[in-house]
Amino acid sequence: MDVGFLGLGRMGRAMAAQLVAAGHNVRVWNRSPDPARQVAGATPVASAAEAFRGDAAITMLADDAALRSVIVEGGLLDAPERPAVHVSMSTISVALAQELAPIHARAGVTYVGAPVFGRPDAAEKGALNIVAAGDDRAISTVQPLLDAMGVKTWRFGEEPHRANAVKLAGNFMLMSAIEAMGEACALVEGHGVKGADLLDLLTNTLFASPVYKGYGALIAEKRYEPPGFTMRLGAKDIRLALAAAEAVGVPLGFGSVLRDNFIDALSHGDGDKDFAALASVAARRSGQG
Amino acid sequence: MDVGFLGLGRMGRAMAAQLVAAGHNVRVWNRSPDPARQVAGATPVASAAEAFRGDAAITMLADDAALRSVIVEGGLLDAPERPAVHVSMSTISVALAQELAPIHARAGVTYVGAPVFGRPDAAEKGALNIVAAGDDRAISTVQPLLDAMGVKTWRFGEEPHRANAVKLAGNFMLMSAIEAMGEACALVEGHGVKGADLLDLLTNTLFASPVYKGYGALIAEKRYEPPGFTMRLGAKDIRLALAAAEAVGVPLGFGSVLRDNFIDALSHGDGDKDFAALASVAARRSGQG
Amino acid sequence: MDVGFLGLGRMGRAMAAQLVAAGHNVRVWNRSPDPARQVAGATPVASAAEAFRGDAAITMLADDAALRSVIVEGGLLDAPERPAVHVSMSTISVALAQELAPIHARAGVTYVGAPVFGRPDAAEKGALNIVAAGDDRAISTVQPLLDAMGVKTWRFGEEPHRANAVKLAGNFMLMSAIEAMGEACALVEGHGVKGADLLDLLTNTLFASPVYKGYGALIAEKRYEPPGFTMRLGAKDIRLALAAAEAVGVPLGFGSVLRDNFIDALSHGDGDKDFAALASVAARRSGQG
Amino acid sequence: MDVGFLGLGRMGRAMAAQLVAAGHNVRVWNRSPDPARQVAGATPVASAAEAFRGDAAITMLADDAALRSVIVEGGLLDAPERPAVHVSMSTISVALAQELAPIHARAGVTYVGAPVFGRPDAAEKGALNIVAAGDDRAISTVQPLLDAMGVKTWRFGEEPHRANAVKLAGNFMLMSAIEAMGEACALVEGHGVKGADLLDLLTNTLFASPVYKGYGALIAEKRYEPPGFTMRLGAKDIRLALAAAEAVGVPLGFGSVLRDNFIDALSHGDGDKDFAALASVAARRSGQG
Repeated sequence: MDVGFLGLGRMGRAMAAQLVAAGHNVRVWNRSPDPARQVAGATPVASAAEAFRGDAAITMLADDAALRSVIVEGGLLDAPERPAVHVSMSTISVALAQELAPIHARAGVTYVGAPVFGRPDAAEKGALNIVAAGDDRAISTVQPLLDAMGVKTWRFGEEPHRANAVKLAGNFMLMSAIEAMGEACALVEGHGVKGADLLDLLTNTLFASPVYKGYGALIAEKRYEPPGFTMRLGAKDIRLALAAAEAVGVPLGFGSVLRDNFIDALSHGDGDKDFAALASVAARRSGQG
Repeated sequence: MDVGFLGLGRMGRAMAAQLVAAGHNVRVWNRSPDPARQVAGATPVASAAEAFRGDAAITMLADDAALRSVIVEGGLLDAPERPAVHVSMSTISVALAQELAPIHARAGVTYVGAPVFGRPDAAEKGALNIVAAGDDRAISTVQPLLDAMGVKTWRFGEEPHRANAVKLAGNFMLMSAIEAMGEACALVEGHGVKGADLLDLLTNTLFASPVYKGYGALIAEKRYEPPGFTMRLGAKDIRLALAAAEAVGVPLGFGSVLRDNFIDALSHGDGDKDFAALASVAARRSGQG
Repeated sequence: MDVGFLGLGRMGRAMAAQLVAAGHNVRVWNRSPDPARQVAGATPVASAAEAFRGDAAITMLADDAALRSVIVEGGLLDAPERPAVHVSMSTISVALAQELAPIHARAGVTYVGAPVFGRPDAAEKGALNIVAAGDDRAISTVQPLLDAMGVKTWRFGEEPHRANAVKLAGNFMLMSAIEAMGEACALVEGHGVKGADLLDLLTNTLFASPVYKGYGALIAEKRYEPPGFTMRLGAKDIRLALAAAEAVGVPLGFGSVLRDNFIDALSHGDGDKDFAALASVAARRSGQG
Repeated sequence: MDVGFLGLGRMGRAMAAQLVAAGHNVRVWNRSPDPARQVAGATPVASAAEAFRGDAAITMLADDAALRSVIVEGGLLDAPERPAVHVSMSTISVALAQELAPIHARAGVTYVGAPVFGRPDAAEKGALNIVAAGDDRAISTVQPLLDAMGVKTWRFGEEPHRANAVKLAGNFMLMSAIEAMGEACALVEGHGVKGADLLDLLTNTLFASPVYKGYGALIAEKRYEPPGFTMRLGAKDIRLALAAAEAVGVPLGFGSVLRDNFIDALSHGDGDKDFAALASVAARRSGQG
C-alpha cells in the first residue's frame, strides 16, 4: 500500500520501519527533519502535506497540540490531495478524537482511531497491541498495515474515540499497578522487608504479568533512569483519563490519588524520570526516602 | 509428622486433607464440631488443647479475635502438653503476630507466621503460595508440612510478623487491582465500550496474570454471587493493611480510597457478595448502576 | 466616571446599579439584550465595543469562554476606541488572566483582575469584598468604582492573575467547608443525632462565620432549591482551582475529593441544585439518603 | 455539691478550679500525684476510689486506655462507695462510651457523656461549650457543675455516646478547616501571594469565626511551637472519627485525606508540634517547604 507516516519519535520510527519491512511504500515526515529521524527504505518528504495522502496516512504525533497543529491548523484537510484513511495512532484525548472524526468526514477522509499498547522494544518487533475503532470497512482496508506493526488488532466498534477511551483506561490501570506496588513496598519496608523481595514473590505468582514484572523490576531496583516513558508524560495521561471520565460523569478515586502523586513527584524534580518513579512518592511521604 | 490442625473452614479442611494425603498423622479440631467440618483420614479431637500439641500445631482460625480467644484466652500456652512449633497460617494483624511471638517463646513454643496466597481451589490441590517468617530451624522442621499444602514457600526472615506484613501487602495489591478494573470499566462504559471488552483485551495482554484474569472475569460478568471471599472479609483486610502501614508511618493513598469504597459497598448491602463487587462502587457513583 | 459594564447576569445587574447610584455615567451591554437585563439609569448600548471604552470597562461575563469570545475573538482590543482600564471581575482561570494581561498591555489598556466574594444579595447592597491585583495606579484610578460596589478592596500586588488565584483559593475553602459539614452530618446522623442539631451547635460557636451559618442552614434543612449558585458552577470552580494548583506544582488532596464528589453529584442529577447539595454526596454514599 | 475530679492535665486543672470557685466541694486525683498537679481550694486524695464517689465524679483522663484502666480495670464500679453520676468529659471513642454506659447502669451509677469544645484558655475562664448526652434528670442534677465550667451546655438526648459522636464530628470539622487553609495557602503561595495575606482576607470576611481566626493566625506565621494541642493527639482524634463513622457505614473522603496527612506529618517528625502544623503537609508535598 501507499502510506504516509507523520511523527518519527522512537515509537514512530520503529513502526514505520515495520511497514517498510512488510513491503509497503512509505513516505515519512517529521517536524524537525534531522537525519536521526530517518527510516531506512522509506522516502523522506519535506512537508506534512506530502505525507498526508495516498491509501492511508498514519499519525504518531506527540500529543493533542501537535496533532491539532499539523492536521487542522496546518490545513491538511483542505489540501488538494488527501489520504483515503487517516489512522491516528498516538495517545490523544477522547475529546480531540470526537472533534476530528466529523471534520475528517466532511473532507472525505475516513478517520480511524488506533492507539497502541507497547513500549518501543515491542514496536521494533511489530509486537504492539493495537486498539482500533472507526468505520469497519476502513479498518479492514488498513488491516495489512496494522498487521505489520502489531501482534493483534482489537476492534472497539465504529466510533473512533472509543479506541482512545480504551487506551486511556489501560494506561490508568497501568499507573494504578505502579502506585499499588509503591504503596505496598512502603508498607513492608516499614516492617523490615525489602520491597524487592515482596515484588519477587508477587510478580512471580498472583501478578505474573508483563506490566507487573516489567515495572516491578524497575521499582525493586529503584532504577528510574534513563526513562522509557517519562513521569511528565504519565502526568499528561492521567490528566487525559480524568478528563475522559469527567466528560461522562465518572469519578475516579484512584485517578485522583494518581494525579496528586504525579504533581507531588514533579514538584520534587522527578519529571524526567521513568514513569515507575511514581512509586517513590509513597516512600517519600513515609519518610523512608 | 504428628500434627494438630485448628480451624476447619473451607481453607482449613482443604489444607488438612493435603497433610493427610502426604502421610502425616493429623488431629483436627474446630470450634463448632459439626460433621461437615471433618477431614477423611484425620482424627477429630474434642478440645483445642488436644490439637495444640505434637511436632507442630497449625492454626487456620478466622481472625484476630478467634486466634486470641483459642490460644491466649483458652490458656493453651499454659497447658501441660504443647507443640514444638505453632504455624500460624490465617490472615491476622501484624500487631497480633508481634504480641504472640514473645509469649510463645516464654512458653517454649516456637511461633512461625505462615499466611498463604490462594483461594480454596488452590488449597485443594496443595497449590498455595506460603509466606513464612520465623526461626529458620523451626521453618525447616515444618517444611514437609508446608510442602504438602503449598506449591512454594517464600521465606521472609526470622521475625514472624513480617510474613503478615507481606500477606497484607499482597491483599492490598489485589484489592487495588479490583478497584482499578472497576474504575477503568466505568470510564469506558461511559463512552459506550463494554467493560468486558476492555478487560478481555487487557487481561490477555499487559495484565495477563491470575489475579486480573480471575477477578476480571467476575467483574466483566458482574458475577458477585456466590462469594469466594466476601466483601466483609475484604473490608477487614484493608483495615489490617492500613493499621500495619500506620504503625510504621506509611500513608496509603490507594488504601484510603479502598477503605472508603468498602464502607460505601457495605452500606449498600453488598457485604456478603464476592470481593470483586468492590468494582460496582465506581459504577454506582457514576450513576451507571 | 465614564464606565462601560459588560455582562448583566444577576451579579452584574446589581453591581452596575450600584455604580449608577454612586453617580457614575454607565453604559451597559449584555449578549442577549432582553429587557429583563436592564439597569435603571444606565445607558444600554447595542454592541460590546460601545461598552468597552471610556475611563474604565468592567466585565462580569460568565466564564473563560465568554470573556475570551467577547474581548479577544470579538476584536475589542483592536477597536478604534478602547478603555483606559479593563477591570475583569468575574471568576476566571489564572491561566486566562495570565494570557490577557500582556495582550491588553500591547493594546494600551491596563488590565486589572478584581474578582469578588459575595452572593447577589451582597452585590445589591454594594457589600462585596473585592480582590484586586494589577497596576497600582490603575487600581487607584478605579477605586471609586470599586468603592461603589464593595465594602472593601483587598489588594494583592501588581500581577493581575494573583487576584484570581486568591478568588479560587477562597472558593476552594468554601467548598471544603460544605463538604466537611456534609461528612460530619453523615457521621452523627448514623449515631442518631440530627445534622441540624450538630450544625446549630458548631455554627454558633467555633464556626460562627457567614459561610458556615449560611451554608449550614441550607444543609441542615436540605434546602437545595432554588439554587443561589449551582452545583454545575461549583464543579467548574473546583476544576479551575485544581488547574491553578497543578500549574504551580501543588497537589490538593481535599480538592481531589471535592472534584470526585461534584462529578458524583452531577451524575445523580444534582447539577442545577444549590452548591450546598454537595453535602448530600456523603449521605448518599452512606446509604442514608 | 460534693464532687470528685479525676485527671488533672492542663484542661482538668482549669475545670476543677472553676468548680472550686463556684463553691463546690472538690476532691481531686491524678495518676501522677506531683505538686504541679494541684488545684487551690480542692482536696487532694490518694486514690482514684476516693475521688470516684459523692454527688458526682468527673473524669478528664487522657484517652480510652486511661479511662478504661482507671474506671474498669481499677474496679471502681465494684467499690463500696460510688458516685451517683459519672460525668465523662474527655474525648473518647464512641465505642467505649457505648460499652461504659450499661456497665455503669449495672453498678447503679448514671453515666453521662459530656465532652467539651475549647482550649485551656477557655477552660480557665469557665467558657467551654459542653456537649452533654445521657439521662435527662442526671444531667439536670449536675447542671450547676457544668455551668461552672462552661458557657453553655448543648444537650443531645439520652444516649451518652451521642455526645462523643458530636465531639468527634466537631474535631473533624476543625481539622478539615486547618487542612483547607493549608492547601489554599499552598495554592496561592505558588502564585506569589503570601498565605498570610490570603488568610487575612478570608478570616476577616467569609470565615470570620474563632476556629479560622485562631488556627489561621498560627498557619499564617507557621507558628507550630509550642503546641496547644499536638499533632499526635490530632492523629488520635481523626482515628476515632473514622472509626465512629465506619461503625455506622459512613465513608469520610476528607477524613481519609486527613488521616494520610497526619501520618505523613508524624513520619516527618511533627508529632509534637501544634495541630495547626497539619497545614505544612500541603506545602511540603508541593516542594515549597
